[in-house]
Amino acid sequence: MQLVEKIVKGERAAIAKAITLVESSRENDKKESRRLISELLNKPGKSIRIGFSGPPGVGKSTFIESFGRFLVEKNYKLGILAIDPSSQITGGSILGDKTRMIEISKNPNTFIRSTPSRGSLGGISLGTREASIILDAAGYDFIFIETVGVGQSEIMATNLVDIFSLIVGPGSGDELQGIKKGITEYADIFIVNKNDGDLKSEASKTASDYKSAISYYKKSSDAVDKEVLLVSAIEQTGMEKVIETIQNIVSQNKKNKNFDERRAKQFTYWIEEEVREIIQFSIQNKIKEDGSISKFSQKVIDGEIQMFDAIEAITQNLRNK
Amino acid sequence: MQLVEKIVKGERAAIAKAITLVESSRENDKKESRRLISELLNKPGKSIRIGFSGPPGVGKSTFIESFGRFLVEKNYKLGILAIDPSSQITGGSILGDKTRMIEISKNPNTFIRSTPSRGSLGGISLGTREASIILDAAGYDFIFIETVGVGQSEIMATNLVDIFSLIVGPGSGDELQGIKKGITEYADIFIVNKNDGDLKSEASKTASDYKSAISYYKKSSDAVDKEVLLVSAIEQTGMEKVIETIQNIVSQNKKNKNFDERRAKQFTYWIEEEVREIIQFSIQNKIKEDGSISKFSQKVIDGEIQMFDAIEAITQNLRNK
Repeated sequence: MQLVEKIVKGERAAIAKAITLVESSRENDKKESRRLISELLNKPGKSIRIGFSGPPGVGKSTFIESFGRFLVEKNYKLGILAIDPSSQITGGSILGDKTRMIEISKNPNTFIRSTPSRGSLGGISLGTREASIILDAAGYDFIFIETVGVGQSEIMATNLVDIFSLIVGPGSGDELQGIKKGITEYADIFIVNKNDGDLKSEASKTASDYKSAISYYKKSSDAVDKEVLLVSAIEQTGMEKVIETIQNIVSQNKKNKNFDERRAKQFTYWIEEEVREIIQFSIQNKIKEDGSISKFSQKVIDGEIQMFDAIEAITQNLRNK
Repeated sequence: MQLVEKIVKGERAAIAKAITLVESSRENDKKESRRLISELLNKPGKSIRIGFSGPPGVGKSTFIESFGRFLVEKNYKLGILAIDPSSQITGGSILGDKTRMIEISKNPNTFIRSTPSRGSLGGISLGTREASIILDAAGYDFIFIETVGVGQSEIMATNLVDIFSLIVGPGSGDELQGIKKGITEYADIFIVNKNDGDLKSEASKTASDYKSAISYYKKSSDAVDKEVLLVSAIEQTGMEKVIETIQNIVSQNKKNKNFDERRAKQFTYWIEEEVREIIQFSIQNKIKEDGSISKFSQKVIDGEIQMFDAIEAITQNLRNK
């Protein structure tokens, strides 16, 4: 496959083309996409995949832009995959955020892609996992996966990354109770942004609050300690500590096998998802061809058959096909 | 079924018990729930189901409380089903909203239930449709179905109701562009809240903006005109006009068969959903029993087989079972 070679060489046009393919929901594209990903998996790179999440208004995109610039200046290659909740009614600000990233997107060592979420909180954005495999094969050092602050999608995002970090703002320590315990548990790193100007002392207080909150969580014996870090995205301070912490957690996790185990678990989960999707697709086709649903539902409406019995009859019918 | 008799008599404890049953995701409960709903469908009531949606901050819960009180004072029986996005990271205010409804919930002619969303934007809250059938059989006049302002779930909610209304705040006319066109299209009524105090002129302006916006939409020849209404939830003004408009739309739709057709379409869609769920459940079981996924995914990780071929082998295997 010529596309594979071009991706491995790091050609931007090929990467963009491949990501468009894996984002497609057309059945033919899906088959081709599975083949492509299958081949790229044989050419693994060295990428570390970092998840970034957090409630709106904490300066998540500004942080990612700032931290991203910091890494690119150190000559790292950086991919940014943002999951865009296109279906959100109050989603105006999200596009606004993205335009702020224009500066970093011009850098040849950065590849940014914003993918619409699949219209489902549970389902991860269509193609994000595949996109990270493409960027990995293309030699990117870090892949950021950014999700917006809607609970479920974060928890799903932990399935895609090696490290998961929650970005919060000053003063949010009081809201710790409100933030879903699950997310706090899943996070490896807490980044308190806006540690600048008048907010400095509030940011420090918030960091302390998080530190004391996470000290209550039980951890398994070989788990790496969770870290709370203070940064200012606009002043670009605290970035060195962030990358140090990430690299430290990764190297510890690699030593104690947590890194490989996590990736293997994610991989198994992914195959299960793919298998389920293929089978569901064929059921959907069977249902369409069968045509018995509208026939039976009319019978229920007309009082000729009970709904329960209609459902039984239809499923039995489909199973025998 | 004794429960059916009690529901038809309008016994609150029976209604509550039945709703708990239909919300359950346990497989046994689901079977029982399907049987119950099947029987209740033979005892249809006269309920009109009204969907309420809108972005956060427009006073949606306050409006529902106020409009609800207005209806209850007119001796209507009112059921309120709120879909609660339990998984939302910034969901603090949602619970806050619910407590504001305590006053109306004490009324014997009101039944309120807040159901957690299924953790999926697409999937409607587990059991909301069934709950509305229970309340219908129990003799409720109106059933409100309230969703929170996250695009996809509204569109799904239109599948559950006879009338869909969008609640907006003063000044939101400018954001019309930002609000997903789909939702505006799906709505039958636009309710501009906060038509009180200093906001009055802004509210009128917003109503005009909506009126001119909807005038651009094409409508099919027998569709009822969309309406824009001004209300103040806190002053309880404009409520008479809201109920008049609802009743007018319903009676027109009943005359031109739109009402029945919409319900029949929703019913067919529902049966399809149920069938799909039953089949998916059995596939999930097959996958679990089969156990080949973890075996194959290890082979892929070890480089013994390509991912694409592993997926083919697993699905083939499951199909032959």
